[in-house]
Amino acid sequence: MTWTAERHWPVLAQGLAGRLRRDSAGDWDRFIHHPFVRSLADGTLPEEEFRRFLVQDYLYLIQYARAYALAIYKGATLEDMRSASAIVTGLLDTELALHIAYCASWGLTEADMQGQPESLELLAYTRFILDRAQTGDLLDLIVTLAPCLIGYGEIGARLHADPATRREGNPYWPWIALYSGEKFTGFVEAGIRTLDTLGARYGADARYPMLLSEFRTSVRLEAAFWLAGQSGPL
Amino acid sequence: MTWTAERHWPVLAQGLAGRLRRDSAGDWDRFIHHPFVRSLADGTLPEEEFRRFLVQDYLYLIQYARAYALAIYKGATLEDMRSASAIVTGLLDTELALHIAYCASWGLTEADMQGQPESLELLAYTRFILDRAQTGDLLDLIVTLAPCLIGYGEIGARLHADPATRREGNPYWPWIALYSGEKFTGFVEAGIRTLDTLGARYGADARYPMLLSEFRTSVRLEAAFWLAGQSGPL
Amino acid sequence: MTWTAERHWPVLAQGLAGRLRRDSAGDWDRFIHHPFVRSLADGTLPEEEFRRFLVQDYLYLIQYARAYALAIYKGATLEDMRSASAIVTGLLDTELALHIAYCASWGLTEADMQGQPESLELLAYTRFILDRAQTGDLLDLIVTLAPCLIGYGEIGARLHADPATRREGNPYWPWIALYSGEKFTGFVEAGIRTLDTLGARYGADARYPMLLSEFRTSVRLEAAFWLAGQSGPL
Amino acid sequence: MTWTAERHWPVLAQGLAGRLRRDSAGDWDRFIHHPFVRSLADGTLPEEEFRRFLVQDYLYLIQYARAYALAIYKGATLEDMRSASAIVTGLLDTELALHIAYCASWGLTEADMQGQPESLELLAYTRFILDRAQTGDLLDLIVTLAPCLIGYGEIGARLHADPATRREGNPYWPWIALYSGEKFTGFVEAGIRTLDTLGARYGADARYPMLLSEFRTSVRLEAAFWLAGQSGPL
Repeated sequence: MTWTAERHWPVLAQGLAGRLRRDSAGDWDRFIHHPFVRSLADGTLPEEEFRRFLVQDYLYLIQYARAYALAIYKGATLEDMRSASAIVTGLLDTELALHIAYCASWGLTEADMQGQPESLELLAYTRFILDRAQTGDLLDLIVTLAPCLIGYGEIGARLHADPATRREGNPYWPWIALYSGEKFTGFVEAGIRTLDTLGARYGADARYPMLLSEFRTSVRLEAAFWLAGQSGPL
Repeated sequence: MTWTAERHWPVLAQGLAGRLRRDSAGDWDRFIHHPFVRSLADGTLPEEEFRRFLVQDYLYLIQYARAYALAIYKGATLEDMRSASAIVTGLLDTELALHIAYCASWGLTEADMQGQPESLELLAYTRFILDRAQTGDLLDLIVTLAPCLIGYGEIGARLHADPATRREGNPYWPWIALYSGEKFTGFVEAGIRTLDTLGARYGADARYPMLLSEFRTSVRLEAAFWLAGQSGPL
Repeated sequence: MTWTAERHWPVLAQGLAGRLRRDSAGDWDRFIHHPFVRSLADGTLPEEEFRRFLVQDYLYLIQYARAYALAIYKGATLEDMRSASAIVTGLLDTELALHIAYCASWGLTEADMQGQPESLELLAYTRFILDRAQTGDLLDLIVTLAPCLIGYGEIGARLHADPATRREGNPYWPWIALYSGEKFTGFVEAGIRTLDTLGARYGADARYPMLLSEFRTSVRLEAAFWLAGQSGPL
Repeated sequence: MTWTAERHWPVLAQGLAGRLRRDSAGDWDRFIHHPFVRSLADGTLPEEEFRRFLVQDYLYLIQYARAYALAIYKGATLEDMRSASAIVTGLLDTELALHIAYCASWGLTEADMQGQPESLELLAYTRFILDRAQTGDLLDLIVTLAPCLIGYGEIGARLHADPATRREGNPYWPWIALYSGEKFTGFVEAGIRTLDTLGARYGADARYPMLLSEFRTSVRLEAAFWLAGQSGPL
């Protein structure tokens, strides 16, 4: 019996997030079952490539924080503004520090990472998000940010539950544990609920084709980002 | 028998523009029946005040062009982009020149007008539009711009049809003729149709409360703008 | 011997903030010596007017937080982003709560204040800031935000030091004490230093005429804002 | 004797454009001497790859027009706004039509091109420009747009002057002729002058490190874009 999102993660069986995810099934599968993900699961990913990925992931977090800063600006209620502000603070004050600590365990210092150029994959993905954020309203922004959050949560949950995932001696097991952990799962579920709330308020059903189109582009860019550490310097 | 928008201008009897207008009836009436408008109709507006209004109106056109520039940027189709670009070009190349020519007949030169500070009313109205334009999507932008276009069209049509409007010796009759003319009426009706088209595509019904709120603020700011030439320098 | 900013607050004797302040001396004086300020100092301001001002001030804080959210987005370094994010968090989580507590002492509840419409003065001032923030870069944004911070600091310091200020039985003494207090003074001085740092990095000297122009508009709007509670509803 | 930009195109020997170009010499050379460019010069580029490039170039023009729409919005003078508006109109009304006509000669219809997804290279390049445009001021925007304009001009001029360039039977000769033609050269020189004018007004010297950094990223993205037709679908 294979793991399926709808059965094992009922929050995805309905609501806007689930609908967007189902309607981009092909792209979604290429993202969450990407060879990079499989090589994390069986521990065969070359460590040097993972290090380069971690550098790009560090640079990604900074742009991600910029996108959520626009969510504060675009929020129509104090509650929306505060919720986005908490995410920005969390990213800049906590998540970056955790990421840096994790990277240190791979021999990377923050100074190393700050000096690295952004890859083509990183530029494409983050600047697409930021452009959608400025062009559209808060719903466009949150929809475009959603694949990252939901996808990492689903990958974490699936790999953690999968008996085929190698645990012993797999250098990537802590990464899998992080994204399947209670804390991250809590973030994901909060994000899925936010998407439903905003979707109702901003008319998601009536403008669904545009939302689906930007969600799918974001999913494809997230899939391409797995290779951000593989391509050479821009 | 009094003039009513729905009977005399059937395009306002239905559609998004008509709905927004009806649902902000009190504010709308204070805008289009403002004492300033009545004093244009009977020719009693002090000429010096009208001159100061014309200066602010000139400065307004520039900010209005900036807002439509954002409509190009926010357009999701080439057709939307081209339509907004035609409006920007029309404003910067044609409307400004016409306005300057008209102002010259009132003894104002462009150099005079460029040197004047923006009034509180102008800053409030135009920067509110520009902030909504950046915060929201193309529909928010077009809804917020609508009161100016529709209101001037309705005022022009009503005053032109009203037998009580003074024509002979009224220095403001050319102004009334301009906004009741075929060319301007054509602009207004095109704008009303655009609102319906975009409203359908961007889910206006589902997000109607937010749209109505920004439309009403814009109507109130348009009403306040009649006095832009009356208040002293900021 | 009268209080002067340069002598009593040496941080204003030099640097970008001091230069902007000196070069807009007339507007600056009309802002910080406004009749509203004098009536706070001698306790003659009608309490009802002050209450209406507090409501607008509450609504102002929300827009101010939106402007600082854009400073996170526009920051070019992690340090700039973190510093702006700390201000946003401080505003949304701490300052608003303090303001609400203070307003409660004047009989105002948060629910009362949330339901009030924004005044013309508030719309003009905050949307001008937000438009400059989006149109320009981080330096334009910080320069446009500066008059509020520096002006309140200077007013607080001056009124606190002035023996003519009424302390006993003046219902506005706590307001004066707040803005002359150590905590707020610390904010102001940090803001002045930030202005110098960013000014150097973003070429303030070479683009000074544009910066001065937007600073002066902001000062005039801040002066107009004192009457935000006096004018009727928009 | 080889062609050099400074000798053959004196406008690049000085001014902001020339300085930026010289200070990013390595990246600049990789852009203008890219294998793709060499294969246009000797006619060896596979035609199918060129067709895919043309599709991405069509999609690029649309995003490029969006960036210039932001230049209208960000312009501080009517002259700057009009100059940017003329470029937007030129792109949407003339350049796109010319490009479509040219593509038709390669068997591509507009409908074909509109249906194609944007490549990773296109997304990275155009959204980087748009994000810089919104984050910075008009100078940041124009600097980031410059490599495309200047580079195509320089490539056109160099290939046209180079006796080694194949003219007879080279299917890419019309492309080279276009970008070395008087009309396009006029655009480029106007763009270089605009850069100098804005550079002086917005303090380019004092903020040069930031400008150079964004110019270089843009050059590298422009170089990567030559392969936009080679990589598979995103």
